[in-house]
Amino acid sequence: MTSVLSIESSEIALAWWTRSVQRSALQNMLALCSGRDVISFALGLPAPNQFPVDVIQQSVLKVLRSEPRAFQYSPPLQVLKQQIQSLMRERGVHCSTEQIFLTCGAQQGMNLLARTLLDAGNGQVLLEELAYTGFQQILTTLGVDVLTVPTNPESGMDVDAVEAVLSSGARPAFIYAVTDGHNPLGVSMSQANRIRLVELARDYSVPIMEDDAYGFLHYEQDFIPPLRALDEDWVLYVGSFSKILAPSLRAGWVIIPEHLMLSLSIVKEATDIDTTTLAKRIVSAYLESGCHEHHLPRLRGLYRTRRDTMLRALEKYFPSEARWSKPESGFFIWVELPPTINTSDLLKTAIEEENVAFIPGEAFSVDKRHSATNAMRLNFSHPSPDRIEEGIARLSRLIRRY
Amino acid sequence: MTSVLSIESSEIALAWWTRSVQRSALQNMLALCSGRDVISFALGLPAPNQFPVDVIQQSVLKVLRSEPRAFQYSPPLQVLKQQIQSLMRERGVHCSTEQIFLTCGAQQGMNLLARTLLDAGNGQVLLEELAYTGFQQILTTLGVDVLTVPTNPESGMDVDAVEAVLSSGARPAFIYAVTDGHNPLGVSMSQANRIRLVELARDYSVPIMEDDAYGFLHYEQDFIPPLRALDEDWVLYVGSFSKILAPSLRAGWVIIPEHLMLSLSIVKEATDIDTTTLAKRIVSAYLESGCHEHHLPRLRGLYRTRRDTMLRALEKYFPSEARWSKPESGFFIWVELPPTINTSDLLKTAIEEENVAFIPGEAFSVDKRHSATNAMRLNFSHPSPDRIEEGIARLSRLIRRY
Repeated sequence: MTSVLSIESSEIALAWWTRSVQRSALQNMLALCSGRDVISFALGLPAPNQFPVDVIQQSVLKVLRSEPRAFQYSPPLQVLKQQIQSLMRERGVHCSTEQIFLTCGAQQGMNLLARTLLDAGNGQVLLEELAYTGFQQILTTLGVDVLTVPTNPESGMDVDAVEAVLSSGARPAFIYAVTDGHNPLGVSMSQANRIRLVELARDYSVPIMEDDAYGFLHYEQDFIPPLRALDEDWVLYVGSFSKILAPSLRAGWVIIPEHLMLSLSIVKEATDIDTTTLAKRIVSAYLESGCHEHHLPRLRGLYRTRRDTMLRALEKYFPSEARWSKPESGFFIWVELPPTINTSDLLKTAIEEENVAFIPGEAFSVDKRHSATNAMRLNFSHPSPDRIEEGIARLSRLIRRY
Repeated sequence: MTSVLSIESSEIALAWWTRSVQRSALQNMLALCSGRDVISFALGLPAPNQFPVDVIQQSVLKVLRSEPRAFQYSPPLQVLKQQIQSLMRERGVHCSTEQIFLTCGAQQGMNLLARTLLDAGNGQVLLEELAYTGFQQILTTLGVDVLTVPTNPESGMDVDAVEAVLSSGARPAFIYAVTDGHNPLGVSMSQANRIRLVELARDYSVPIMEDDAYGFLHYEQDFIPPLRALDEDWVLYVGSFSKILAPSLRAGWVIIPEHLMLSLSIVKEATDIDTTTLAKRIVSAYLESGCHEHHLPRLRGLYRTRRDTMLRALEKYFPSEARWSKPESGFFIWVELPPTINTSDLLKTAIEEENVAFIPGEAFSVDKRHSATNAMRLNFSHPSPDRIEEGIARLSRLIRRY
């Protein structure tokens, strides 16, 4: 055999997107905090002691005892689609089971949709200049361009700017929108803006990917239905059981026009085989138990209390120049500190000296138009109310020293 | 708002790969056979009554009772990596836990690796002209080109042809190889060819993705270790619990050089969040129970019997012009009928008139160089020995009529 070693690279060649990769802020956070008693406002974790363990346990046993196909490959679980159809009615959304596609969580739903809608290495997506890091990773690994529009913690996505971009001729593959419990801003979109955004999608034939991972967790008497309630042709809805049941079950769904189903099922099969996993049968048995009808309101009460605790603590301890969102849904409060404070620097000291963690605003910046260096995302769902109060007090001590 | 409806498409624009999609042969098969008592040699399903249900049930309960983090997001499960490290020693492979990455089954392992190694829409992969359909779907959805080399049921991948392709200057992102229990051919690669293939990978700096989904299921006294036992820098190993425990747990792993870990973890996070699911904790508890040490030899015995039953039935019933592989591992026998017989036509009649199903060879054809129109893939793991005998007898009746 001819040796050609001299002219070859001695390393495995990788896809070009890998050249720009870094560990995500969230993965870094997990590593930094591990093994320490840190009050963490960093990750979007559900509260630890609310999982309906007994009912899930009974559901597992029921599935294992009564369902001989539970261990085998099998087609998507029809009964779970029917249950999701009912759940969606509570969100004000009417859909058929033929429009529901089961996924491993919202992240997979968004990934599969992006890969169905986008020519990798050759497309554009329109999103806010501050956006969920997991969605940004999808774009990075697909090597696609971004078009950004301004956003803010009071009113969310700037829909005028969306219109300006589209009317100037840009045709992104889709618009990414979080209408409720925005991650990281905590904002919900007004009804007027929802209607306008859907009209823009129709007029310009640009679909909207609606990330509703937090939508079921709304804390006020009234709530506005998601975009999908306004349009079934141009809104691609992404839902999840991660925040309302348990992340480790990796169960979610998307609601899309039927004509997208074949392509989506192929990209799903290519990704991890289109099977109803054990976990999906467990979710279905849990929903059948009727427990969810009590569990969801209980969760809303639990998280409402934590949100209010954090808002009161911010009011009590934080400097008067700071501003923050007052979320009606979701897991996060967005805080803007005086512009002289760099929250990435602050984070290091916060962990080392005060044992408190958060995610610096910069982590969510899509391009350099809004780098949010003085902002932080605070999670209120995971720490207990006592820890929330204590953590905000510690953070404020630190901020006042800056 | 200006209406631009007149100049816009009224349909959602999709990625270009979607234009060529069809339902996979396997999905079609599931649909065709549903609701009928078909003897199916079609899918690669484990035998239905061998799942260690009691031990899995105990494992689930143990996890739910003793592991408070079982429902939460959490980092990859270190203990499962150690258990996989031990398992791999049985395959003759030595690796560190830092080289093990947990996945949702082998399909996800291959998908994540492909997306790490390949520039979407802009790369090449070298594979045999007959290959696993799920791997072909990964290439389709990534929009990459294929380079094929001949293969056959006696000796597998033509390694001379691999050398010819590489020495002519082609530099695929990787070579896809199934060294044991080849799907669809049922062949295992000789030791000499394994050594040569790994040398080619090193000499030309082209990594090999080794799909070892069936490798643990070998039926002879002696077995040859996989390519990964020969090289840790250029062989990217893909393993799975689907065939040796249960597909619905969606648990697999890859073994790769450490320098690929960061990129792989980012593409995994973008895909479905890098979490240890409930299922992975269940797999770990199952392995800890010690049951696997008895279960795996039992599985090998069970499938060896079914393979032998099918080989005897083919000998007894099939026309003398037919040829078939004698697999040492895996789930499949590849049968070649006289060239006048088109197995795609035969399949329709087989299902309608004889209630027997298989996958026509054509489904595995990567390009038109080997369209295998007279071949069929027969699965022997799922049907019982009685049904195997009966199904082969029925098929042979039909073939003799052609």
